[in-house]
Amino acid sequence: MYEGVVQDLIDELGRLPGVGPKSAQRIAFHILQADPADVRRLAHTLAEVKARVRFCTVCGNVAEGEQCRVCRDPRRDPAVICVVEESKDVVAIERTREFRGKYHVLGGAISPIEGVGPDDLRIRELLTRLADGTVTELIIATDPNLEGEATATYLARMIKPMGLKVTRLASGLPVGGDLEYADEVTLGRAFEGRRLLDV
Amino acid sequence: MYEGVVQDLIDELGRLPGVGPKSAQRIAFHILQADPADVRRLAHTLAEVKARVRFCTVCGNVAEGEQCRVCRDPRRDPAVICVVEESKDVVAIERTREFRGKYHVLGGAISPIEGVGPDDLRIRELLTRLADGTVTELIIATDPNLEGEATATYLARMIKPMGLKVTRLASGLPVGGDLEYADEVTLGRAFEGRRLLDV
Repeated sequence: MYEGVVQDLIDELGRLPGVGPKSAQRIAFHILQADPADVRRLAHTLAEVKARVRFCTVCGNVAEGEQCRVCRDPRRDPAVICVVEESKDVVAIERTREFRGKYHVLGGAISPIEGVGPDDLRIRELLTRLADGTVTELIIATDPNLEGEATATYLARMIKPMGLKVTRLASGLPVGGDLEYADEVTLGRAFEGRRLLDV
Repeated sequence: MYEGVVQDLIDELGRLPGVGPKSAQRIAFHILQADPADVRRLAHTLAEVKARVRFCTVCGNVAEGEQCRVCRDPRRDPAVICVVEESKDVVAIERTREFRGKYHVLGGAISPIEGVGPDDLRIRELLTRLADGTVTELIIATDPNLEGEATATYLARMIKPMGLKVTRLASGLPVGGDLEYADEVTLGRAFEGRRLLDV
């Protein structure tokens, strides 16, 4: 519909996740009217990211060097590893400031429907990290959905016999939420996981 | 939250229209995992667009050369000009294949609230095009909202005394829509604009 390179840009933008044809067009027109310096910076950052960012050789998190920020930090407790699906999850957990151990990023979750099996995840790398006995607890923080639960169960069965403490993040009512809006599965989990109130 | 250049990319993406922090993060992670060739192509297209695309010196539409595709096309009727707010509107009208004249892109609409006055639009350029008497009809296709109507009225008042036929696109019920879902203003316009059925 548009002339050459404008249509190329709309097509390229439309391939990004969550960007439909209308948004692609809106972004393209924004770029046409934007300050050339801003657009140059965006193009440069795209190239830089691909050139400089790799994945941490220890935990699989995004990293600019060999190792990510958490793995490089000597103040982080090497005895506890939190297993997550994606680097995004590391960021979410870091935001809570609750966890002072290390991470392991699997790169997804087991999903027979999408054809993702245990061998497609960074599970072998996890086992290697557990081999020297430094780690005493593994917190499994995969998503609380079907794939995440399957992955958690798979990992727990494999790792518990090694004598490690294997835990899973609690499921329950979201803090600040309304009980009446909670779905039944969440509410059921909240009952199962109920705790004694010491008053 | 992220290391250096990843955060830079999220920030850059978040400046695009309609891209919130969550989408920016999702797109950034997509780019991290994408084929480097794809990302290079996107970065290249961004740079190309800024280098090659300009605005048509005649009508103000996006163009790769001096003039846009419509202005260059000798089969388009130079006696009829359709006035629109943005290049996006040209594309929408071209899609209908109903119009065979030329365009004039104003670059917006009169909006006192946003500080856009007649001098900020390409109205002087429009008057220049009307000067030699080639144009006999001006179809005003600004948006059917407050700003678009104000702009249409302003243009009609200025141009009608020049002896040109000045028309405005019809307002009414959207084809394929349900009458009961039409807002009252649209329904009112549909009554005002009712036509005799020749049966």
